[in-house]
Amino acid sequence: MRYRRIPDETIRRLPIYLRGLLLTSEQNRQSISSQNLAVLIGVNPWQIRKDFSYFGDFGTRGVGYNVGKLTREIKRILKLDVIQKTALVGVGNSGSAILAYPAFGIYGLNIVAAFDVNPKKVGRKIKNITIENVSKLWTLKKRKIKLAIMAVPHPVAQETADKLVKAGVKGILNLSPCYISVPKKVKVITIDIAMDLARLPYYIPAS
Amino acid sequence: MRYRRIPDETIRRLPIYLRGLLLTSEQNRQSISSQNLAVLIGVNPWQIRKDFSYFGDFGTRGVGYNVGKLTREIKRILKLDVIQKTALVGVGNSGSAILAYPAFGIYGLNIVAAFDVNPKKVGRKIKNITIENVSKLWTLKKRKIKLAIMAVPHPVAQETADKLVKAGVKGILNLSPCYISVPKKVKVITIDIAMDLARLPYYIPAS
Repeated sequence: MRYRRIPDETIRRLPIYLRGLLLTSEQNRQSISSQNLAVLIGVNPWQIRKDFSYFGDFGTRGVGYNVGKLTREIKRILKLDVIQKTALVGVGNSGSAILAYPAFGIYGLNIVAAFDVNPKKVGRKIKNITIENVSKLWTLKKRKIKLAIMAVPHPVAQETADKLVKAGVKGILNLSPCYISVPKKVKVITIDIAMDLARLPYYIPAS
Repeated sequence: MRYRRIPDETIRRLPIYLRGLLLTSEQNRQSISSQNLAVLIGVNPWQIRKDFSYFGDFGTRGVGYNVGKLTREIKRILKLDVIQKTALVGVGNSGSAILAYPAFGIYGLNIVAAFDVNPKKVGRKIKNITIENVSKLWTLKKRKIKLAIMAVPHPVAQETADKLVKAGVKGILNLSPCYISVPKKVKVITIDIAMDLARLPYYIPAS
């Protein structure tokens, strides 16, 4: 079964639901209502019901959603039912924070390689990952690593993305505050902290 | 004039449009079509037209949008027409990266205070900001700082948020991979890199 026309905004929320379901599962609960899931993750219950309606019927009225079934289904939709190998490019402040970040594993994401341009960093080992020279990015293809996190300085973001695309990477998480141009078959998600901060004042009452 | 019922997803894109308009303005161009703006920032032109339609008419058919007028209007809507003072809590890897981040200024955002729990860091100066002890968070109220970026370890995220709320903070950018519970009048935006990475495989062809 293929799911078409699932809005990007629904896809954006699926990992949030997944985290809530994993928490519920840890508490050995087999079902959860949209109301309770809503409280757990801070999303409106109507939004949850609407999002889930895109990919079938997981709830029973008065009982709630089947936690195991829904967890498997969301993982399958997001292609997180297989371990996803990821490369990190740039081991500066942000990159180091990412390597130290504990939350990737719960989603089946695994950072297996790290690259930096600084010869002082190359060869160093962080969390079982030996930092490689950025000139070795081309090896990603034969290592079948299709995801990459870019934590490089803004001026080299585009050329780094070009190298990643050439090495067969299909999905890039870009932490530089700039728009990256890639071929259509490659997906880029940009995290721009300044942009997220920029929409915060909107929600603040005037005085 | 008040704008009601602007969807959160439109608000999410306004800073992206703003960046594109600022770039256009730097090139001394007075108008831009939705097509050209789309290419510049990587958003669909129909999405741009739909988003702008929520807050009036800024375009002339065949001429495009008035860059200056639209820039001012978006800044006003986002409340970025005044400099927004922001505090940073947690000066570890992520926090240091944020202090070094050049992109806040272009949105009128200004990090004016930084806090850490580590006595070795307190008193140190980074980019003209002297790191203060986290026990001084209560001073934010009299300093009229209503925005905060939390880059603290996951286990202390909730208690840090509680202190910020008590100190009168109305908007929190949370970098911990967890849901933070706050009173309704306070807005939290959580940036969870693992979650963003988790939706990337969805877009990758199976091959």
